[in-house]
Amino acid sequence: MNASPIAAAPAGAAPASFEHWLAAHAQRAERALDGALPAAVTHPARLHDAMRYAVLGGGKRVRPLLAYAAGEAVGASGAALDRVGCAVELIHAYSLVHDDMPCMDDDVLRRGRPTVHVVYGEALAMLVGDALQALAFETLAGTVAHGVEATAALAMVGELARAAGSTGMAGGQAIDLAAVGAELDAGALEDMHRRKTGALLQAAVRLGGLCAPVATTRAGGGRQAALERYGEAIGLAFQVVDDILDVEGDSATLGKTAGKDAECNKPTYVSMLGMGAARALAARLREQAHAAIVPLGAQGRRLAELADLIVMRSA
Amino acid sequence: MNASPIAAAPAGAAPASFEHWLAAHAQRAERALDGALPAAVTHPARLHDAMRYAVLGGGKRVRPLLAYAAGEAVGASGAALDRVGCAVELIHAYSLVHDDMPCMDDDVLRRGRPTVHVVYGEALAMLVGDALQALAFETLAGTVAHGVEATAALAMVGELARAAGSTGMAGGQAIDLAAVGAELDAGALEDMHRRKTGALLQAAVRLGGLCAPVATTRAGGGRQAALERYGEAIGLAFQVVDDILDVEGDSATLGKTAGKDAECNKPTYVSMLGMGAARALAARLREQAHAAIVPLGAQGRRLAELADLIVMRSA
Repeated sequence: MNASPIAAAPAGAAPASFEHWLAAHAQRAERALDGALPAAVTHPARLHDAMRYAVLGGGKRVRPLLAYAAGEAVGASGAALDRVGCAVELIHAYSLVHDDMPCMDDDVLRRGRPTVHVVYGEALAMLVGDALQALAFETLAGTVAHGVEATAALAMVGELARAAGSTGMAGGQAIDLAAVGAELDAGALEDMHRRKTGALLQAAVRLGGLCAPVATTRAGGGRQAALERYGEAIGLAFQVVDDILDVEGDSATLGKTAGKDAECNKPTYVSMLGMGAARALAARLREQAHAAIVPLGAQGRRLAELADLIVMRSA
Repeated sequence: MNASPIAAAPAGAAPASFEHWLAAHAQRAERALDGALPAAVTHPARLHDAMRYAVLGGGKRVRPLLAYAAGEAVGASGAALDRVGCAVELIHAYSLVHDDMPCMDDDVLRRGRPTVHVVYGEALAMLVGDALQALAFETLAGTVAHGVEATAALAMVGELARAAGSTGMAGGQAIDLAAVGAELDAGALEDMHRRKTGALLQAAVRLGGLCAPVATTRAGGGRQAALERYGEAIGLAFQVVDDILDVEGDSATLGKTAGKDAECNKPTYVSMLGMGAARALAARLREQAHAAIVPLGAQGRRLAELADLIVMRSA
């Protein structure tokens, strides 16, 4: 596997180590989410308490991190990226709440804690998911107050809605529902994952890129295309690695029930390709992600490092 | 009760009868919804089929009608109002799908037909609701292609998200959940309904007003304030009348299970105030709605007529 082409050519002052960047930005995302969510005492308090439980105190924040990294590659402001990262993460968080419910995956454990419907009941869990989705769009509408042009902010609303909707994430989940116990070919499995997980990860990268200052946007069609290709590769890589970890991981490390997909007879990359080929595919997608961002030069450093992290993670 | 102050002063050519306007615009809303929803054959087809089942072929389209009437009062374009009406109705439709599910109201009948989860299963019904919410925001983002300024379209996204979210509709539903079997005072009941039903009806009026051409918007702070007051009165009136009809109506006319609220021991305006006082409140709110739009002159005609329709409906 190639070394990152970006790490070889640092420009200007020595950049912070990736570990430092990662910790600082994960913390930043956490603070932004805390600020975007209504206080737990705001009426109706039980709903807001449950929304905070669903979102805060756990999660790797991969989507906000991708938004920060993509935004940094195009010179976007941190305040705008805070909101964009929040919006994408709120969509992700709502999907987990609904996914865990008895009528879907019926999971009782998430990020090492009881799932929302276990703690707050099914009816409130449904409302938590519904309200988090609305909050995601409200948060995105607020980016105009942070240096994003109205047309760009509106483009983000459209992008996020498509990534979350019936031809994106929700569509992928519907395909997943129908796939239990069914035979999927490789093309159909990839189509499902591109929608179910890939679309939102890709949206995180795209929306980060759309926070670029106006001058950059006009000059930067090539940059957006690079981010596009990167997002596509990393979106799929994430799912392939998830499937590998579902077989290899243990519940304690994953913070959710391991082996669940196999147990539910859901088709996965591992069940379809075998473990060796699934690993090779993940490695190939990582290389594609690295290759995609060569045009970004040293500014794509964090994206390259995130690609490595996503493929080599153990949880 | 006063006669409509608007009907007394028609300006210019004789306007179409309200019945004609109503039929034409309900049909127009239906066509717009049909166009906004993906075709039933679009992959994933079962999800799209279920989304169309949830939205099309029924419903009074009160929210799109309010958007059309408000938009006409400020000279907005029909194409923009089509999208705005759709967006609000899609939010309404998603809330009905989720509301009807077993973990919420467990209703099997809606608009005279089996509910979505009865026909398609609970898991898909949840995804239908989730995807309809996303489609609402996608549709709203598309208003820029129809003469709405990006800043106005973005303001609409924020408005609709707040109306649908944890301090609006979803918040009202959470309060409703907690209120089963509990004692609510009049203030708490009104607060619940302002959020649960009122916020979205009011958003329909507001968003219609936000479709005003730029010149009108700048000159028209007074118009928006009039629409604001109208939307507030009509939003509450709608719920009071709903509570009256829940007691007086029969399932065939309502297209849903009558007496459900009383049976579930939910507090209603009728259970709290008694039938006579509930009727008087509805009449008073109708008068408030009429008074609010006096500044709009003859252009507020349809809003006045809609207020009458909402208060005097039998289903």
